[in-house]
Amino acid sequence: MTNEKSISPQTQTWEKRFADRARNMHASEIRDLFALLGNPDIISFAGGFPDADLFASPQFLDGYQKYLRDCPQVSLQYCASEGYLPLRRWIAGFMHRQGVICSSDNILITSGAQQAIEFLSRLFLEKGSSVAISKPSYLGALQIFDAYEPDYRFFDAKGKAAGRPSPDTDDASPLKLIYANPDFSNPTGETMGTCARRRLLALARDNDIPLVEDAAYSALRYEGSTLPSIMQLDIEECGSIENSLVVYCGSFSKTMTPGMRIGWICAATPLIQKLVLLKQSSDLNSSTINQMVMHRVAAEMFDERVLASRQAYRQRRDNLISALEQYMPDKVCWQKPEGGMFVWLTLPDGLDANALLAKAIALEGVAFVPGRPFHPDGSGRNTLRLCFTSCPPERAREGIKRLSRLIIDEMADLRSVAPPEMVPVPGL
Amino acid sequence: MTNEKSISPQTQTWEKRFADRARNMHASEIRDLFALLGNPDIISFAGGFPDADLFASPQFLDGYQKYLRDCPQVSLQYCASEGYLPLRRWIAGFMHRQGVICSSDNILITSGAQQAIEFLSRLFLEKGSSVAISKPSYLGALQIFDAYEPDYRFFDAKGKAAGRPSPDTDDASPLKLIYANPDFSNPTGETMGTCARRRLLALARDNDIPLVEDAAYSALRYEGSTLPSIMQLDIEECGSIENSLVVYCGSFSKTMTPGMRIGWICAATPLIQKLVLLKQSSDLNSSTINQMVMHRVAAEMFDERVLASRQAYRQRRDNLISALEQYMPDKVCWQKPEGGMFVWLTLPDGLDANALLAKAIALEGVAFVPGRPFHPDGSGRNTLRLCFTSCPPERAREGIKRLSRLIIDEMADLRSVAPPEMVPVPGL
Repeated sequence: MTNEKSISPQTQTWEKRFADRARNMHASEIRDLFALLGNPDIISFAGGFPDADLFASPQFLDGYQKYLRDCPQVSLQYCASEGYLPLRRWIAGFMHRQGVICSSDNILITSGAQQAIEFLSRLFLEKGSSVAISKPSYLGALQIFDAYEPDYRFFDAKGKAAGRPSPDTDDASPLKLIYANPDFSNPTGETMGTCARRRLLALARDNDIPLVEDAAYSALRYEGSTLPSIMQLDIEECGSIENSLVVYCGSFSKTMTPGMRIGWICAATPLIQKLVLLKQSSDLNSSTINQMVMHRVAAEMFDERVLASRQAYRQRRDNLISALEQYMPDKVCWQKPEGGMFVWLTLPDGLDANALLAKAIALEGVAFVPGRPFHPDGSGRNTLRLCFTSCPPERAREGIKRLSRLIIDEMADLRSVAPPEMVPVPGL
Repeated sequence: MTNEKSISPQTQTWEKRFADRARNMHASEIRDLFALLGNPDIISFAGGFPDADLFASPQFLDGYQKYLRDCPQVSLQYCASEGYLPLRRWIAGFMHRQGVICSSDNILITSGAQQAIEFLSRLFLEKGSSVAISKPSYLGALQIFDAYEPDYRFFDAKGKAAGRPSPDTDDASPLKLIYANPDFSNPTGETMGTCARRRLLALARDNDIPLVEDAAYSALRYEGSTLPSIMQLDIEECGSIENSLVVYCGSFSKTMTPGMRIGWICAATPLIQKLVLLKQSSDLNSSTINQMVMHRVAAEMFDERVLASRQAYRQRRDNLISALEQYMPDKVCWQKPEGGMFVWLTLPDGLDANALLAKAIALEGVAFVPGRPFHPDGSGRNTLRLCFTSCPPERAREGIKRLSRLIIDEMADLRSVAPPEMVPVPGL
């Protein structure tokens, strides 16, 4: 989908000036999809956006009013690179409630979990390093890793080696980082069980490498019991966050608002100290006033907002699943996620979700994200991701109805153009 | 000053896990100084902070109120990685007024100019690449470059080769990037003349490499005529921004507020398109609401705020210079900067500004930034940077009085411990 446009001479001239690592920085499908979301006629399951109606805008307004009136000298000034201390303390308390005993020294404020993953990659990856990931994996993480031309190794939802090379193979470059999104993962919505989490921990221990736990969706559970975070499991074994190899990346984007760009890293103190240097040289600090306001609103009503989001998103998930059950043909598969924002569809072999997207937009006014870009090995052509949080229920049902109709048509076309030996010959 | 602390075993363990590039990420003096600024008894010329009393807080408040009331669904949501279009358009208009004809396609919003320099380094530098800089140079840029273990080459304020190796030498790694801070530079306050700017342009052309123009202070001129930006000079020669090798890094931090973290890159479209990918993978987008509010307040009163800042800072500069003239001993040198935020002091040979800082804080309650860290070759021990924007006039006079007293004492000590052959021997 990308790189198929003709490249202008001026672009070619700049490409020659770039460092080698820029070769692997390509436009993603998700990026191009931002443009579609501006068209209100498109029913979009594409962008992984939280429902903006759930944002606590009156409370955010109160916060901005307070800090701009009471202390503009502080709230509009630079702040320490590690972040606003009261917010770091609040997050340490939040982590404690997740079973992770830590202090504000273990917390760095980042501009979302995306920045956290970028920093960790810059700190741990060399060109050609091996990185263990699930397949499929979060596209935004792959975009970061790709710049290092990594040697990917895959694990499945059980934390076991999947495909070749496996994460514990000996004949490749040394494994330098494990990246996992264990709760309601982007894009599949799958959750890793406790045994799977322990397997990844063992892999981290065996290789003495960090395990990056992307917990962006962890608060959004709609059913079933909460599982211990990988960091909690590690600390139970190793006794203290200071001995843990897990680096926990949290975010307020899915529970409070993504528009203020506030996330965090929770990790052992020496690692946080190094990451503070990276933060300082990367953008000095995250917005001071946004950190102050986020602290105030989170302290006041984080749990309440999470509860409201869970309630609203549970209904949207159920609505989407019921529409899929009603309209989709038998050969399309999915699993009901226990939380998060996504349902992952597997289409019959031979259907290509990239081609489907173009038709879905043009013919049915429906958008989603094709699954292939989430697969660094180019597989997954017949998969796609549906985000159910930002689309109102009735529109979502209508969107699934239209998408199902298109898929049924595509399946019929597929049969009609099947190779000759597959076509029943009369009289035989 | 850094790396002299004892390193804990846990830190050593993590250091082993880091990628090679992390070896050159060290804590800077500026970072440690943030802690000092919390103590209200210290008279600080240290941090390069704008005067918080000049921030347009009522207008910022209006902006937050407007966008949180009118459209929280937009202002608290993700936005396009290239940034909020009305802000990009406003900046294109601003650049036009600086003699740079461009459109919003030439503008990427960044989280301050610091992020701009970091992105450009990641896009252009390989490990060991040569980078041409002034000596001294902005510490925050050196921190970024250092991670690439660059081969630095130096130019002076006239844009001519300074020291060895010179920027146009043949016997080193190829030059990959030129970094200049031509207006009222951090740390020296010096301004490059038009000839000097053209010399750097010729160097960029000869090597076909980007010239990063850090214009963070450019709006803050207190006397003399405004000089054309390097980008304007280049476009006059090459005809269009699309042919320009200059990458202009702008910032609202020094004119409006640093607390919202909004800056920009202005460059040829193909370069901006690549940088948008870097922005997306680095932190998705800068804070949506902050971009919207900054656009509103800049459109309303950018020129007025710049005028107010110029007036206030001109007085503070004059006050500082007059205090230096009154109190400093003859052998301490400085130049009156035409703008910006800094005065650069050169102490007599033999005085060490790092040691002086420790005494200044402990004995006189005065802080500044020692000059050595701005010199990648370890020179500049007898230099220091004074920021005059954030310290009220009477306190500044008192601070310079105390600092002068200390320097006079140190000079006396220096004479008393001079090597024996320098001491006059009675009878000879």
